[in-house]
Amino acid sequence: MNLNQTIIKMVLDRWYGNLKSFDAVLHSITDEQLEREVSPGKNRGVYLLGHLIAVHDDMLRLLNLGNKEYPGLDKIFLEAPDKSIPQIPSATELRKYWVKQGEMLSQKFESFQPDHWFEKHTAVSIEDFNKEPHRNKLNILLTRSTHLAYHTGQFILLKY
Amino acid sequence: MNLNQTIIKMVLDRWYGNLKSFDAVLHSITDEQLEREVSPGKNRGVYLLGHLIAVHDDMLRLLNLGNKEYPGLDKIFLEAPDKSIPQIPSATELRKYWVKQGEMLSQKFESFQPDHWFEKHTAVSIEDFNKEPHRNKLNILLTRSTHLAYHTGQFILLKY
Repeated sequence: MNLNQTIIKMVLDRWYGNLKSFDAVLHSITDEQLEREVSPGKNRGVYLLGHLIAVHDDMLRLLNLGNKEYPGLDKIFLEAPDKSIPQIPSATELRKYWVKQGEMLSQKFESFQPDHWFEKHTAVSIEDFNKEPHRNKLNILLTRSTHLAYHTGQFILLKY
Repeated sequence: MNLNQTIIKMVLDRWYGNLKSFDAVLHSITDEQLEREVSPGKNRGVYLLGHLIAVHDDMLRLLNLGNKEYPGLDKIFLEAPDKSIPQIPSATELRKYWVKQGEMLSQKFESFQPDHWFEKHTAVSIEDFNKEPHRNKLNILLTRSTHLAYHTGQFILLKY
């Protein structure tokens, strides 16, 4: 295993590890629990779930993997705060999207060649990337893993 | 900037970025808010702060940087759940430890040579490390960054 592969494994391990922690909570709670706020007056579980799907969906664009699968979620879960839009997808729908998206992203990541991870992502210019090579695709996965961990810390509070 | 340096920057950026997010919350809340639970029946802010100091203190051991600075915190913030030990350090004390620790770790990290980050950490044997080179010092910082993000997601709920 060379250094590139070692690094990729470190970051992918975090991604899959954090997904697994989130999944463990998601599978252990009911749709009714998903409707609860993680703390009084804060986001509901169902909002966090939709938010994560929308953020992860945007990785398709950033990693140059194609179009978003769920562009309709952006308006509800990225651009608007929780409880400001009355009609949102059901917990059942979001659970389905979540599983499907996890499988799809996993397939795409497994097909990446190591060098591919160190290429620039689509939101940085060639000029900036030449000066700042850390703005690569692997860094997108790393920042999204951190983001996922942040919300998993909240999501787990639904269990009581 | 070679690949090693790029990777180290990616992980250090996460560490400092997550610390900054946590700090922003910590500086914006009062000691009284720190005494609140992040959600009813869950950990208090003061417990999370002590827990993070204890976990980060243990990095000294794992990164072979010397002895723990606050070994007395382990029993309270690692081995016992919140609210099981009546006497814990005050918010004022913990705030001081947090700042001092952040500065100390930052100084130590800045003095690391790039190759140093890819050495084995102290909790893995040479045999295992030869098979699993991702169990290096940089990975300790990466997993602790994720851990910090997880609790920052909870800590921010104290603001209301």
